[in-house]
This record gives sequence, structure tokens and C-alpha cells, in this order.
Amino acid sequence: MSSLAFEGFLSTPEMLDVFNETSVTQAMMDFEAALARAQAAQGLMPAAAAQAITGVCKAELYDVPAIVGQSGRAGSLAIPLVKKLTETVALFDKQAAGYVHWGSTSQDVIDTAMVLLTRRALALIERDLTALIRDLLVLIELHADTPVLARTLMQPAQVVTVGYKLLGWVAPLLRRQARLRDAAGRALRLQFGGAVGTLSVLGEAGLDIARHMADELQLRLPPTAWHTQRDDWVALGAEVGVLCGALGKIARDLSLMAQGEIGELAEPSGSGRGGSSAMPHKRNPVSSMVALAAALRAPQRVAALLAAMPQEQERGLGNWQAELAEWAGLFISAHGAVKALSEAAGGLQVDAARMRENIDGLQGLVFAEAVSMRLAAVLGKSRAHALLESLAQRAVAERRQLRELTLEALQDEAMLRDAVTAEQIDALFDLSRAALPAARIVHQQLPELKREAAALAGKDGQDE
Amino acid sequence: MSSLAFEGFLSTPEMLDVFNETSVTQAMMDFEAALARAQAAQGLMPAAAAQAITGVCKAELYDVPAIVGQSGRAGSLAIPLVKKLTETVALFDKQAAGYVHWGSTSQDVIDTAMVLLTRRALALIERDLTALIRDLLVLIELHADTPVLARTLMQPAQVVTVGYKLLGWVAPLLRRQARLRDAAGRALRLQFGGAVGTLSVLGEAGLDIARHMADELQLRLPPTAWHTQRDDWVALGAEVGVLCGALGKIARDLSLMAQGEIGELAEPSGSGRGGSSAMPHKRNPVSSMVALAAALRAPQRVAALLAAMPQEQERGLGNWQAELAEWAGLFISAHGAVKALSEAAGGLQVDAARMRENIDGLQGLVFAEAVSMRLAAVLGKSRAHALLESLAQRAVAERRQLRELTLEALQDEAMLRDAVTAEQIDALFDLSRAALPAARIVHQQLPELKREAAALAGKDGQDE
Amino acid sequence: MSSLAFEGFLSTPEMLDVFNETSVTQAMMDFEAALARAQAAQGLMPAAAAQAITGVCKAELYDVPAIVGQSGRAGSLAIPLVKKLTETVALFDKQAAGYVHWGSTSQDVIDTAMVLLTRRALALIERDLTALIRDLLVLIELHADTPVLARTLMQPAQVVTVGYKLLGWVAPLLRRQARLRDAAGRALRLQFGGAVGTLSVLGEAGLDIARHMADELQLRLPPTAWHTQRDDWVALGAEVGVLCGALGKIARDLSLMAQGEIGELAEPSGSGRGGSSAMPHKRNPVSSMVALAAALRAPQRVAALLAAMPQEQERGLGNWQAELAEWAGLFISAHGAVKALSEAAGGLQVDAARMRENIDGLQGLVFAEAVSMRLAAVLGKSRAHALLESLAQRAVAERRQLRELTLEALQDEAMLRDAVTAEQIDALFDLSRAALPAARIVHQQLPELKREAAALAGKDGQDE
Amino acid sequence: MSSLAFEGFLSTPEMLDVFNETSVTQAMMDFEAALARAQAAQGLMPAAAAQAITGVCKAELYDVPAIVGQSGRAGSLAIPLVKKLTETVALFDKQAAGYVHWGSTSQDVIDTAMVLLTRRALALIERDLTALIRDLLVLIELHADTPVLARTLMQPAQVVTVGYKLLGWVAPLLRRQARLRDAAGRALRLQFGGAVGTLSVLGEAGLDIARHMADELQLRLPPTAWHTQRDDWVALGAEVGVLCGALGKIARDLSLMAQGEIGELAEPSGSGRGGSSAMPHKRNPVSSMVALAAALRAPQRVAALLAAMPQEQERGLGNWQAELAEWAGLFISAHGAVKALSEAAGGLQVDAARMRENIDGLQGLVFAEAVSMRLAAVLGKSRAHALLESLAQRAVAERRQLRELTLEALQDEAMLRDAVTAEQIDALFDLSRAALPAARIVHQQLPELKREAAALAGKDGQDE
Repeated sequence: MSSLAFEGFLSTPEMLDVFNETSVTQAMMDFEAALARAQAAQGLMPAAAAQAITGVCKAELYDVPAIVGQSGRAGSLAIPLVKKLTETVALFDKQAAGYVHWGSTSQDVIDTAMVLLTRRALALIERDLTALIRDLLVLIELHADTPVLARTLMQPAQVVTVGYKLLGWVAPLLRRQARLRDAAGRALRLQFGGAVGTLSVLGEAGLDIARHMADELQLRLPPTAWHTQRDDWVALGAEVGVLCGALGKIARDLSLMAQGEIGELAEPSGSGRGGSSAMPHKRNPVSSMVALAAALRAPQRVAALLAAMPQEQERGLGNWQAELAEWAGLFISAHGAVKALSEAAGGLQVDAARMRENIDGLQGLVFAEAVSMRLAAVLGKSRAHALLESLAQRAVAERRQLRELTLEALQDEAMLRDAVTAEQIDALFDLSRAALPAARIVHQQLPELKREAAALAGKDGQDE
Repeated sequence: MSSLAFEGFLSTPEMLDVFNETSVTQAMMDFEAALARAQAAQGLMPAAAAQAITGVCKAELYDVPAIVGQSGRAGSLAIPLVKKLTETVALFDKQAAGYVHWGSTSQDVIDTAMVLLTRRALALIERDLTALIRDLLVLIELHADTPVLARTLMQPAQVVTVGYKLLGWVAPLLRRQARLRDAAGRALRLQFGGAVGTLSVLGEAGLDIARHMADELQLRLPPTAWHTQRDDWVALGAEVGVLCGALGKIARDLSLMAQGEIGELAEPSGSGRGGSSAMPHKRNPVSSMVALAAALRAPQRVAALLAAMPQEQERGLGNWQAELAEWAGLFISAHGAVKALSEAAGGLQVDAARMRENIDGLQGLVFAEAVSMRLAAVLGKSRAHALLESLAQRAVAERRQLRELTLEALQDEAMLRDAVTAEQIDALFDLSRAALPAARIVHQQLPELKREAAALAGKDGQDE
Repeated sequence: MSSLAFEGFLSTPEMLDVFNETSVTQAMMDFEAALARAQAAQGLMPAAAAQAITGVCKAELYDVPAIVGQSGRAGSLAIPLVKKLTETVALFDKQAAGYVHWGSTSQDVIDTAMVLLTRRALALIERDLTALIRDLLVLIELHADTPVLARTLMQPAQVVTVGYKLLGWVAPLLRRQARLRDAAGRALRLQFGGAVGTLSVLGEAGLDIARHMADELQLRLPPTAWHTQRDDWVALGAEVGVLCGALGKIARDLSLMAQGEIGELAEPSGSGRGGSSAMPHKRNPVSSMVALAAALRAPQRVAALLAAMPQEQERGLGNWQAELAEWAGLFISAHGAVKALSEAAGGLQVDAARMRENIDGLQGLVFAEAVSMRLAAVLGKSRAHALLESLAQRAVAERRQLRELTLEALQDEAMLRDAVTAEQIDALFDLSRAALPAARIVHQQLPELKREAAALAGKDGQDE
Repeated sequence: MSSLAFEGFLSTPEMLDVFNETSVTQAMMDFEAALARAQAAQGLMPAAAAQAITGVCKAELYDVPAIVGQSGRAGSLAIPLVKKLTETVALFDKQAAGYVHWGSTSQDVIDTAMVLLTRRALALIERDLTALIRDLLVLIELHADTPVLARTLMQPAQVVTVGYKLLGWVAPLLRRQARLRDAAGRALRLQFGGAVGTLSVLGEAGLDIARHMADELQLRLPPTAWHTQRDDWVALGAEVGVLCGALGKIARDLSLMAQGEIGELAEPSGSGRGGSSAMPHKRNPVSSMVALAAALRAPQRVAALLAAMPQEQERGLGNWQAELAEWAGLFISAHGAVKALSEAAGGLQVDAARMRENIDGLQGLVFAEAVSMRLAAVLGKSRAHALLESLAQRAVAERRQLRELTLEALQDEAMLRDAVTAEQIDALFDLSRAALPAARIVHQQLPELKREAAALAGKDGQDE
């Protein structure tokens, strides 16, 4: 029984499975089996022994919770696992038992197991990230020109388009997907060094065995063991943290635009999704919730990984073990977030009418910069800025339209009256015109983003 | 928390059980049962309904993993649990089913459940903290006067005593135990506010029901719901973080003094404890390992709790959920550390002979300050300090005793020769004399620490 | 010249001054002067020497940046400072120079200096926290009954009152102020232990000197030096972190309610406050900005302090120094936040009309729980919840009032029609009635909060 | 960052200068000058105006602290700076003043300034990282074959060579240098988007102006403004964090091996370096201290940057500002660490004799795995492991050599006596033979590392 009661709604069953105790055990056994076969291939053990070992490297044959339970006393998961494996091999082949784990050390089997599981975890993240990107690109195309408020410091600022906002969501995801693959390409390596990283027990055969194992497990072969040189590994974790930040930005925007009083976007509804146990009318933005939780938790996980880096000499005391325990949480959060936002994007409700209403509700204030810039040509920048600041304040206080107030100001000031026409002012308050700069960017950028997405989706993940 | 395969050797089975899915479910059901009984007592539901509800508020009646699994879609663990509970009540008493969870909200049941579990978690931590403190006090008594090197910036500095070092371990633990109780006293409160914290559905009866529930669950009754005012709760988490830091300091010292080349302290050995899968001679300091891992992880957990505090209006989006998911990990780490160090302290091996050898091996350098202070009376402080600095360098370079070099220097310098005798110099290099200031502190402080420990152990934990 | 360009608008000049290089230098000199006077009082140095030392313990006599500059090579700020101080004393009194810093160590002077500065920092925080609490209590009184939307998971939920929301802001501040004093009372202690904490150079006089210094500096005298037992000190830092979280919660709420489209609250405007360099109409919530920044930064600072706790044996290598460098930032952020929110609260604009409009704009949805509860008496809870869920969806889709739809539903369902009258339904949609439970809590709690605030304001800060 | 009094000995004057207030101001003015010239080039302002603006974009003309001081009220450093700049331009050319900052926004000038300063910061880090790598490679060559203890979990494990240990220090640095360049290549980009990122004021000319500015400032031109898409920027910060971790690992090892009782490595000594104000004999490892402090602080900085990523819509409230304030600290720590370790490596004292003594002092225990492996061929792995475990315990208890005990065990056990000769056992205890696997790795890897280092040193930093 696990202690993950509150991960259930912040992650996915698939990802929780990747790192569950059985999966960890199986991945460790995959290492032991590969080690035996490699040693047999190099003539260090009889083929029959390797076969006997491989035959029982199946997690389902073992009482996994019991093995995990015994790790407490041993201070390592590898010790009870190797012991149990050795005993089991011995049931079938006494001699073979003597070859189990030969020349290897706890850290080899545990780190390699984590690499194997992390590869699976990244594949899940990639799968749903690709789907999320695809759905966002479709939405950008649909809403390239749909006007919506831009907001800065949580206040309405100017008019942009929905496509423009979503461009700011998807571009980082494309970058992160590419970087995640780079980082995985460097980090997903065999760990194999024996007691102190030198494979001393295996002598000159060590390197060939390592090569054979890397081939079989389809992992990169690093130049040396990386027991206490965990920079590339932690850098992969940091990349996942950056991804969570990028997802959190999307969720923050989505949750703000989905507020009942703003109502510009809504997460898809559906039976059992985002209801409230108390309030029947509630439609909670649960996808945003999951991604915001991940964005809040991931920074601390990355900090834990970084803090664990100064590992003592040839094997760390406490820090390696802490890193192991923190690692999975990062992926569990990240996949929860990717999957949740992918579900949200797949059925995102875009309410263009509400967007327009929200703009209209602001009495033209969001056009103030444009008007100021126009009048600056006559009044100079400072005076124009000050005039508009004061007109904006009056608009709010008197609940009037800035356009009207501007036209009145034009009349009051001879200099302006002569230089600026009412038609010019009207044009400045034109919504489509205001949305143009944003729309232009969308139309420029979208083809390139689609090419990148296609290129990324076409590749084989981190093994390119 | 995350995947639990690597928590096994960093925590304890007892603590993992406190926060496992069944325990969480049972604690939530304890809330629901108490709510029903309180409402029956206030006449808001028939006594039979409350009895029907109470009767099925037993986690063992349910498929707990299925309930947790459904929390993903709902975005909350409470929704599937209340649904399942309602269905189960209905099997026995249709009418009673309508009263389940009446007037309450998800956050009420989940937060209160976490409070109940945290109380159990703190009791475990207290129990082993008390044992650790007791064993350290015994060791201090035994080794109040045993000379050992003090080390600053990881270099030998002067001579103190073992008791003095252990005093610096135990005093913070006594302080933290007292603070933890204070913090728990403030944080272990009923959560009960209904949809937005006002218990609006229950009307004026709300407060009486709350009082009844608090009595029954033996929790404090807070003046209002604390749905998004989590300061006292997070402050409790921060206290656990400070405790982990104090434990980490012990573990850091222990691991340094237990290094093979120093060998002053050793964790108890025993079958299956701290062995190496590769190296038969290894005796790994696994208790220190566990406590160092906790000290490395806890700061990030506390940061996550603090970062989650700015929860939006009447219920947070993402931050509350993140806090829930981070909470248990802190206690799981902390108990692992307390228990591990308690085991270490219970059988700690103190090698007084090695301690003396290590002092002797430093050629008298650790007496340099004392000599410098003595000569300063003649030469002035700066010249004395400079002289000793140079003698110390020669002692290292020539592998000679500082005492001899000092006596030679005395001969070379008329001013010193006349003012300082060889006997005086010899006295400065006397080990027992050097250990005296530390021993004096131990003898002064120990009785008070024992009184505090007795007082803390005599109280009933956080409910004093 | 400092590197604090971006702290300027996140903190206050006062707090930046508390921790600037000159203040640190002066505080260190205050320690050295107190040490000299204490030793003179105990007969360990001539009164004239103590006078000579005291006379030059004035930061303005020194080239402070030069001293800080030299700390790099020495690895400690104390070494160049003591050197410079000794040289300066020698200009006036050669013999006195020999007594400077006698029996003390770098950590004594630096830690005590930080304690002295932290006391000043806390006084600033207390001052503005008291003002903030006072202003919020006034606002609560004014708006105890003003209806406003409660929002959960960033969606409109039910109706509460402004006073109720502000109660949730101020109660944690009162708690934090009390806790901060407790923590300061424990942490603001003299640091004085000499080379390894035993005051070995001073012999039996050590304790009397320490007592004299503590009296003079008005600091608590701890039982022993706390060079590497920093739990109470870090716990004080953690308390500041919790305060930042409580302030962040206020800022998050304020910024959400101040969004242009919601407009329920507004920070006070004023010349030069919260303008935009580009957009003349912008009125940015800069107080919220400052407090949100603090709430985001403080958790990491606290984590750094906690992570630095496992300090090696009698003086840490790297961790003590890291703690020193991180410490001030926490207070700098916290005071920025307190001061900013105090300014905001002092002129907070509460727009009761907009609050009502926002409620009205939601078509009665926020009364859905109340209606559901009423109909549950007839239909049972599940059916009532499901009915209201479906009516709520229709209200949104058809842009109609939930009240009308409910009345129609009453007609359609014989069971309901007989049991519930239209008047009863109307009453459920009554705003003042809906606000009642929240208002009741405010009226109950406010007197007690005012008493607590008065009690806290009446005390002398951390020295009570 | 915070108060800087305690950064002096944890950073470098050069790096503190890069981010001081004058440098920030100048970098902001470099942006404004480039903007003016670009707009003049595109015909948006008269050349004379651009010249007038450029002429006063010199920080030394301004009261920088006053500008920073005013940022508090404005909530942004850009507002008082642009105001002051505009006034100053107006003194010389009234009309030109109207063009200052035209079409731009606060975030454009601040972010671009930070990019410019970060480029300088990275150049400093690169310079000293290159030196550190070079010195470590020299040491590896010198000590490729020097035997030294490998230690795992802080206990002696086996024999490796100094070169092997240093290989584990330098390889991560080469990787990090390469990654840092990659990350910088992506992150060092112009920020230019105007009010909401669309350059709306500048119309279609916007992109050409941006291109002109990027050319002039020698920055990459991003496809769009990255106001709230800070993933590549934060990823650069995370890379610096990983570098600090890799440096911390070196410092941890160095400080452990430099402990007085172990004495295998020593930081270079020198006047004023690493002395103690109290203890004349102390030689503190101050380079390690600085790097350990950086490794402890950097994770929290990275966490702060990651936590700040979910920035609201088109400009963040609080999070952008927090990121700005946290950014410099990361580089300040990192350069302190790189520079300190570069100094340490440049004069590192390697005591091969002590290394051998430390091995000898362990009574042959570090050869236990080798012996076990040899006997396993006769006894089977489990029995051999158990036998050596027991012999190792006796060696410790009786203070005897494992070699002797093994030879005795050989005599006691007929099976062994017949299969293993005393000569074979002696060979297992041969030091050079034991060091061979490590030495082999060094000789294999060193040429490649030297090639990489040469390639990295030959390139032009982040602009390759």
C-alpha cells in the first residue's frame, strides 16, 4: 500500500505505474539479467548460469513489498533484492547463484533502473506534450484574429488576439520538447562501475561488458561511471522543472481567463469533471489546478536534486539516496500537468463574444496608448501621456467612454483640433485595427511553429 | 511524496502506514462519522441516520485504490469517497444516505483527515525523539570529560570533550521537541466551514456542530475555518523542517567522526545493517545517511508549503492541492531521521583511545592558541600570533611537535626566556587541562537538560 | 556601490539601511566595544584600554568598502575588521591594541552583529505590521456586512461579506505577529564562545564577561554558544517566511479583486504610484506586486537557511557563510511586503456597487447550493444536486436567471410544487440573507481580534 | 541578492561590479541608445534626436542611487530612469526628448539590460572555468597513477588514483561549460515588444527596428518578445545552478581530503588566506568554503526562478520582479565558486605520502573485495563474502593486517589451502596492482578530455 493518496488527482495512473515498486524492481532485474548475459557473452560465466539468472529476473516472481520493506535495515534497495534474487537462482542452479550481480554494486543497478524508468516516463510526457502542442496549434489557426484583452500586471492593457496569446503558450512547449530530448540524450546512460567506479573486479573485460549491456538495454555508454558526477542527470531533472514552469504559465493564464466574471476561456466540462461536493453550479478548472500544482512543486524538486549534487568522493552519503527519493516526483507532477492541459486544450471553449464584451466594458481605456502616441505628435510625448492619464481617470470616475472624452479634449485644445480629426480618433478606437499587430505576429510565426512541431513529432523521441 | 520504492530505507514502516491510502481514507471517514453524530446530537438528522453512517465509515469496507483512482477525474479525493460512502449508506438506509457529508465541503473532510493523521505522525516522532534524547543524555554523562578534537571549518581546532559535542546535539532536540508541541497545539484544529467557510447551510447550528465534532475528534476548535489561512499549519511543517536540520547536524558530525581514518565514533553494527553489496569490509553509517537525506529534503518541502500559502480567496487553485501532496513527505523524512539516529545513539561506539591518538597525531598544533595567548602577555597579541603561526607551519613541514619548537623559540628569544618557563609551556600542552573548559560547560548544563528532558517526557505530547 | 538595483522597489530604504555594509560594520564594532568594556569590568584589561577601543568602534572612522573588499581573501569579514580596528586602536594606545577581540572569534562578532541588526529589522516589520493590522480592522468594521462574492478554485462560489474576507487577512497577521515575537525572544541572543565555543582563553571569567555583554547589548544570554546549533535562529527566519506567505495571500486576493474586469478593490492611487511607462490608463497594483514577490522569494530563503543547518562540528564550512549571506534577504523582502500592503490598506478603495454588480452578473448561480439544500428536503440530496447542476448549466447556456429556471422546475415537478413555495425560492435568492452567515462570523470575531491587536500593540515587541 | 556585506568573501569584485547599480543603469541606457539609433536608421526619428539621446546615455552623468531610490514608488526601475533620461535629453534638445523610449516598455529595457550584463557575467565564469579545467588537467597528468583511497558513503572503500578522482571533477566541468554556452546561445536575446509584446506603436517598422537593435547590441533576435515566456532564460539560470552543483562536488571532496587527520590534499596557503582570528595554526580551506556555500545557495535561486515562471498573461505581477531580484545572486555565487576553486587548483598540494599512509593505516581492509572475489572461485560468492566480512571485523578488533588474517584463514581451511597460494594472496594486497583499474581509465580518458578542453577554450564563448 502506498502513501500517494494525494498524487492521484495530480498525476496519471500511467506515470504512477512507471515508478511504482514493481516497476522499480523489474527495472533492477532487467539490469541484473543484462549483466549476466553480457558476462556470459564475454566468457565470464557459463551461458547456463546467465540463462538461469535471466529466467528469474521477473518481478512477478517476488514479494516486492517484502523486498522494499527489508531495504530499511540494509540502507539500500539493492541489497535485499540481490539477496532474494541470488536465493531464487540457487533454487534452480546453485552454481549460477554465485554469478549474480558479479562485479557490480548497488548504485549500478539502482541508477540504471532509474534511467530505464525515466526513459518510459519521458515517453509518456512526450506523447501528451505532442498532443497538447497539436491542439494548441489548431486553436491558434482558428483564433489567429479573434480580439481579446492583453493584460499586464493583472490589469487590462491593450487588445491582442487569442492566437497571439496561444502562440505564447505553445512556443515554449516546442522549445522545451526539443531541449528535453537533448537532455535525455545525454542523461539516459548506463551506470556500471562496480564498487568505486573502476570495474576493478572485472579487469580489462569491464569495458566490453559495459558496452554489451548498453547495447542490450539501448542506453548510451558513458566514458566512465557517473556515480557521483550527476550533472547530466540533474540537468535532465532541471529541464523537466522548466517544462513545468512553462505549463504553469499556461495554467495561470487559463485560470485567469476562465474566472466566472471574465469567462473568455473554459475548460471542457464533462461528467464527473471539476464538480464541487458542495456547490452544484461549480465548474472548477481542474486542468489548470493540476498544472499549477505541478508548477509550484517542481521548483522544489529541482532544488532538491541540485542540492544533492555535492556527493562525497566515490559514493554519496544521504545525498544520492535523497536524489533517488525525489526524482520520480518530478515526472509524476510533470505528466499530470501535461496530460491535464492536453485534455483542456482538446476541448477548450473560446468565447469570442465575452472577449469582445470585456473589451467594450473597459470604456475604451485600452486604446489610451494608441491615442497618446497619436497626440504626442502634436503635444510631445510627456504632455500627451499626462493628458491621456487624466482622461483615463475621468473615464473611470464618470463611467464614460474614453473616445468621447478624447473628442471633447480635441475641441478644448486648439492645437489638437487643428491637427487631429475625429475620424482619426475613431480609427484609433477600432478593434480590428488594434488587434492587427498581434494578428500579424501570429500569421508570421505560425507556419514555422507548425514545421517545428511536425519535425519534433516525426522524430523518435530522445533517441534521435 | 512520490514513488515510494526509495522511501523504504529513508523512513519507517510505521510512518509510511500513517499516511497510506487506507489511513487517509479512514481518517476522512472518521470526519464523516463525527459530522453525522454531531448533527444527530443537534437534531439535524435522525439518530438512526447517524448510526447508519457511522456503521459504514470503516475503510476496510471499501476498495480504497478504486476511490483514489477516481479522484483523478474529480480533481479531489473527497468527491469519489463521499459518493461511495453515500451509496454504501443507501444500501442499508436510503434516508440516511441523504444526510452524508451534509453542510460540509471537500476541504473540511480532507484537511481534518490530515490533521488527525498528523497527530499520529507527531506521536511517532515524539516517541523516538524522547528515546534519542534519553540515550544522548546517558552518553553525555559517560563522556563528560573524554577529550576529543574540536574542529572548525573541517580542520582540527582545539580540544573539547565528547560530552560537550553531544551537548550541542541534544540541546537543540530538547528545544525542537518543545517547539513542535507548541506548533502542534496551534495547528491541530478541526477544519469545518462548508462551501466558503461560513457553514452557511447549517445556519446558527453550525458552531454547535463544530464544537461537538472538535470534542469528539479531540481537536481544537478554531474561531473560523482556516481553508485558505494556513499559517499555523505551515508553521507546524516548518518546525518539522527545523527539527530535520537539527538531526542533520548530528548526522553530519557523526559521519565525519566515523570516517575510517578518524574512527572516533561508530554507529552500532549488526546483522544486515550498513553492509555493502560489493565490499565485505564496509560498515556504512546508515543512520547518518538517513538523517542527512532528511536534512537535504526537508528544506525543499518546507519551501513548497510556504510557496503554497497565497491561496486564492476562499479556496486555492493548485496550491492547496500541492500542499496536501507535499505534506506527508516531511513527516516521513523526519521520522526516518529520528528513528535512525535513535538507533545509532542507542548503540553508539565511542573510541576514546582513537580520540586521544587523533589529538596526539596533530603534533600539538591544537594548543597553538593557548600558547599564543600566553606569549601575548610578553610579545603583544600580534607578534605572538605571528610567531605561533610560523611555528605551526614548521611543525607541519618538519613533522615535529609544536611543544619542542616552542621551547626552542623560548631559548632563541631573551624576552620570552625570562618571562616564561618550560614548565608553563608544558602545562599549556596538557590534555586534561585543555579539555577543562568544555568539561566545565557539560557539568554545568547537564542537570538542567536532564530536567527539561524529564519534563518533556512527562507531559502528554502536544495536548499539554 | 551595491548590487541591489532590483531590491529598490521590492523593499524599503529603511530596511536596506539596516543591513547595509556600514550597519554591519557598526554592529560588529558594537560587539567589540561591549567585549572590551566587559573585560575591563572583570579586570581582564585596563579601563583605559577599553576606553581606547570603545572610542574607535565607530564605523564612520573606517573605509568600510575596503574592509568588505579584503574579506574576500580572508574568507571572513571579521578578520580584516579586527585587523583594521587593532591598527586604529594602536594609533592612540599601543597597549590597548593587544586587547582587541581578546578571547573571541570571528563567529562571535559576526553572529552577534547579525542579531543586533535583526532586532532592528524586526522592529521595522512590527511597526508596519501593527499599522496594517489596524487599518484592516477599521475596514472590517466598515464593511462587516457588505456583500461580495466568495470564490473557490478561482470561480464564483457564494456570497459572503467584505469584512469576512478581510477577517481572513488579518487573523493570520495577528497570529504571526505574536509568533514572531516568541521566535525573536528565543533567537535574539548573544553569541560568545571563542575559538570552539568554550571560551577557553578566558577561563572561569568567561561566563561573567558574557553576562556583562548580554546586559549591555540587551540580548539574552544563552546557556552556551550556538555556533553550530542554529535551530532557534533558523526558526526565526522560518517565522518571517510564514509571515511572507500570509502577506502573499492578502496580495493574491487583492490583485484578483482589483482586476479591471472585476474592480471590487483598488489600491490607492497617487502621483508616481503604479503608472506604466507605456500605457497612460494603467493603474498597476504595485503593493500587491511587492507582496507577491516577497511570497515567492521567501520560501527559497527559508529553504536555504534550513539547508545550511547541518554545520560541521564546531564551525561550519560553507553553510554558516551561506546562511549569513541569505539572512538579510528574508527581512528585506518581508518589510517590503508589509510596508507595501500597509500603504494599500491605508487607502484601499472598496467598491460595494461593483461587488453587487458582479454578484448580479452571475445570474443567481451562487445561490445554487442554498436552493439545492432546500430541494434536498424533498428530492433527496443527490437528486437535488443533480437538478441544480443541470439548471445551472442551462442558466449559463441560455443566459437566464437561475431563479426563473428554478421556479419553472418547481412547476414541472409535482413533488416540488407541493412542497416548496415561490416565496421560499425567492428568499433563497435574497442577497442580505445570503450574506448573513459571513456577517455573523465577523460580528462574533471582530471584538476578540481588536483585543488581540490592542494587546500586541501595547507590548514592547520581542522583549516582553 | 540581499545585503552585500557577506557576499564579499563568497563572490568576486569583478562579478559584484557586473551587477552593481551603475552597471544596471548603463546597460539600460545602452538599450535606450540602441533604440534611438535604430529608430533614426528607420526614419522614425531625426538623426539629431538619436544623437542627442545617445549622447546622454552614460550612467556617470546621473545620480544612480537617486534613480534606484525612486524605483520604489514607481514599482519599476525603468520609470524613474526614463524620466530622468528624458529630462536630461531635453536640456540639450527639447524635441529629441519626445523620442526617448519611444514604442518601448519597462520590461524591454530592463530585460535587455539583464541580458547584456549576463553576457558579461558568463564571460567571467567562462574565463575562470577554463583556467580551472586547465589546471585540473595538468594535475591529472601528474597524478594519473598516484594511489589514493576511494571512499564510499564516507568510508574507505578501495584504492584508486588521484588522477581518477580529478577526472571525476573535471569531466562535469567540461560538460557544463559546453551546456552553458548552448543555454546562453538561446537565452541571450533582445527583449523588445512594447506594451504587450506586439510592438503595436511602431507598426510594421517594429521588426526592422528590433533587427537593427539586435545587430548593434550583438544579441540574438527572437521571433517574438519573451516578456512572459521565460523558459530559455530560466533554463540558463538552471544551467548555472548545475554548474554550482558540479563545483560543490569538487569542494566537498577537497574539504574531506584536506581534513587535518587525512591531509591528502591542501589548498594553497598564502599570506592572509584562510587564517583564523583565534587560532594561529589554522589553515582553513577557504576555496572549498566558497564553493560549498555556492552549492548550497544556488539550488534555492534556481527554485525561485522556476517558481516565478507562471507569469500572468502579458506581464507578470510580482513574479517577474522576483526573478529580476534573484537573478544576479546566482551568477555572483557561481563566479565566487569558480574563481575560488581555480585558485585552489592552481596551487593544490597533493601529498602522495599521506595518501599511502592512509591506505596502510587501514590494515589492508580496502583489499577485502579483491580477496573475496578470489576466494569466491573456491567457496562461492556468499561464503567468501561472509568470510571476508568476519576477517575484516577481526582485523579492526584486533588491530591486525587483513593480509595476515587471510593467510591464517587459508591454513585453517583445506579447500582454500589447496586452491590459493600465499603468493596469490600477497598479489591481491599489492598497491600498484590495486590502483591499475583506475589508472587505466585515466590514461584512456585524458586525451579526449584534453581535446575537449582545447576545443572549448578555442571557441569564442557563447557566440559560437
